Amino acid sequence: MVQLSERLDSAFAALGDPTRRRVLERLGRGEASISDLAGAFDMTLTGMKKHVHVLESAGLVTTEKIGRVRYCRPGPRRLREETEWIAKYQSMLEDRYDRLGEFLERTRGE
Amino acid sequence: MVQLSERLDSAFAALGDPTRRRVLERLGRGEASISDLAGAFDMTLTGMKKHVHVLESAGLVTTEKIGRVRYCRPGPRRLREETEWIAKYQSMLEDRYDRLGEFLERTRGE
Repeated sequence: MVQLSERLDSAFAALGDPTRRRVLERLGRGEASISDLAGAFDMTLTGMKKHVHVLESAGLVTTEKIGRVRYCRPGPRRLREETEWIAKYQSMLEDRYDRLGEFLERTRGE
Repeated sequence: MVQLSERLDSAFAALGDPTRRRVLERLGRGEASISDLAGAFDMTLTGMKKHVHVLESAGLVTTEKIGRVRYCRPGPRRLREETEWIAKYQSMLEDRYDRLGEFLERTRGE
């Protein structure tokens, strides 16, 4: 079982590339083969295979070979844990700014 | 002006490392100098400087040198655009699964 921290590492790293984000957006609209994707993004098959491999290792894309063609679809991971990490961090920042605001308010009153 | 896509690239890539995420969590609780952070994470000053530089380039950390000490605090970017990208992708996936569900429902009825 891969730890949460490692899942976050590989998912965030996978998202840190414009082509990989566009591949996910494309697959969000429907399945595609790796050659479809290579064509759509004007990229070599080898280049696209590497991107798909990074997405697949991060659990963001599932591939299945049917005959000679490898099809890709989104999932199983749907970035829920990544959203949770960001939401927790943002709420931590809000608390910090609230406390700072209260402090400034108190100081002004004195 | 850096494009949205480049901001997403650098922010997601910055988040794809466990130490950098923990540094953000630590700064969410209050300012710290780079040596404080290096000490807290049992890391060399040089190693920590690199991580802070990646976070600063992504706009996730601001540093300020006061005397001989460089202090770090979160921001100015607070991962709002990253949350929006993920939310849009997730809603795209939900639509897709809904359509798939409707299709299966229809097929079963026939």
